[in-house]
Amino acid sequence: MTQFKEGDAAQFSKTISESDIYLYAGITGDLNPAHIDEKHAEKTFFKKRIAHGMLLGGFISNVIAMKLPGPGTIYLSQSLQFTAPVYIGDTVTATVTVIEIGENYKKLKLETKCINQDGKTVVEGTAIVSPPRGS
Amino acid sequence: MTQFKEGDAAQFSKTISESDIYLYAGITGDLNPAHIDEKHAEKTFFKKRIAHGMLLGGFISNVIAMKLPGPGTIYLSQSLQFTAPVYIGDTVTATVTVIEIGENYKKLKLETKCINQDGKTVVEGTAIVSPPRGS
Amino acid sequence: MTQFKEGDAAQFSKTISESDIYLYAGITGDLNPAHIDEKHAEKTFFKKRIAHGMLLGGFISNVIAMKLPGPGTIYLSQSLQFTAPVYIGDTVTATVTVIEIGENYKKLKLETKCINQDGKTVVEGTAIVSPPRGS
Amino acid sequence: MTQFKEGDAAQFSKTISESDIYLYAGITGDLNPAHIDEKHAEKTFFKKRIAHGMLLGGFISNVIAMKLPGPGTIYLSQSLQFTAPVYIGDTVTATVTVIEIGENYKKLKLETKCINQDGKTVVEGTAIVSPPRGS
Repeated sequence: MTQFKEGDAAQFSKTISESDIYLYAGITGDLNPAHIDEKHAEKTFFKKRIAHGMLLGGFISNVIAMKLPGPGTIYLSQSLQFTAPVYIGDTVTATVTVIEIGENYKKLKLETKCINQDGKTVVEGTAIVSPPRGS
Repeated sequence: MTQFKEGDAAQFSKTISESDIYLYAGITGDLNPAHIDEKHAEKTFFKKRIAHGMLLGGFISNVIAMKLPGPGTIYLSQSLQFTAPVYIGDTVTATVTVIEIGENYKKLKLETKCINQDGKTVVEGTAIVSPPRGS
Repeated sequence: MTQFKEGDAAQFSKTISESDIYLYAGITGDLNPAHIDEKHAEKTFFKKRIAHGMLLGGFISNVIAMKLPGPGTIYLSQSLQFTAPVYIGDTVTATVTVIEIGENYKKLKLETKCINQDGKTVVEGTAIVSPPRGS
Repeated sequence: MTQFKEGDAAQFSKTISESDIYLYAGITGDLNPAHIDEKHAEKTFFKKRIAHGMLLGGFISNVIAMKLPGPGTIYLSQSLQFTAPVYIGDTVTATVTVIEIGENYKKLKLETKCINQDGKTVVEGTAIVSPPRGS
């Protein structure tokens, strides 16, 4: 595998389904009515059921684990700011970009961002990972 | 609803099942062999399939959304350090503790930690949330 | 934990998704075409796929186990009358109300009811439970 | 379809998996630690995680909807007594038996029972159904 350089990037996109949100709610136990009660949601600021912000964190984890740096990576830390809601039917693209390379490639700092189909940032933050040896 | 004070805490516990990891993998697309390929996992440092660290982030989201501060909370940010692996069959307890209260209760800083059944910290970090109005 | 009194009540609400019905069908094996075959359903009295009545029984079980009386409760019996259909997209609220308290709080009789978003009763009945000791 | 007679019976059997319990917990929101927290369960009377009693109600619903009387049946009511715990790995057989036939076959009274692999009754009760016309 070739070495990484600053600016390298990889992505994952998915249209958020109701079943994604419902299964995620069941797995994590986060059955907040904002996610699973349409009638409740109508009375909130967001008007509709929204996805769990942390579910989108999983899209970032996907890109890091599968693509950049990929299998063998040790995920050390992640910061996440939840900047806008994601609704059922929105298409979210998670992008991971190398922004800093540690000594001997032992650690990478990654910019991690999720945008919706309109280009609006819905989650952003940074990750620190230890890439697989020899990569 | 009563006001929060520093030191207030709430928890959620779950024994991690294979189906949790597999469904989470399917929802997020994080099909890293470390999570879903037992033969691959045997050759890794961890020896067995491990849960996605970000899945445990969902347990923290659960406690924040459901209990402390509870429904109506706006989740602003979360930092996560992944400090130890979680295996199928481990029982993880997520604890959220109020560590700082902003002016007029507009924001809370929360310590967020997941431990396994042996008391070992597997995920830790902090969250900033805006509690529901009137709470 | 405080003692219960007659009239105490707790609730759970969820918008019924197609995935709820499909997963429930898979778990229980109740693959009745009324639930999973839209073309068949169009020819029935109900015109659309309907949720399993017994799935809503699970919402009642949720409220009893999680809130009233809550964890530690022993669920002794439940009667259910299925009074109206629930469609995909309906929002169902299960309400459990204490209607009778046995000697020394050893048993509680609970009214258990599910209504849809229009206030129509879809399931009703009563439960007998043994609340957790010391509650 | 032939007419029913008293004593007619039908069955469904399934070995209860951890994923059945976990998915059911997620769909219904019944995340009682008795079902999803092995460490908690060890401290209870039952010692291990148990299935939701109401999940077994779904097996009865299965037999009624799929076999006796089968598709087209209108499920009017069900009573359930939860008489013994069901553990992960137990094999449960739900049996539905016709015990009373109403005038003109408009209603049937059914005995509904679930037993485990040792023949122990875990759920029992009765159902009233309106069989499909012409059956």
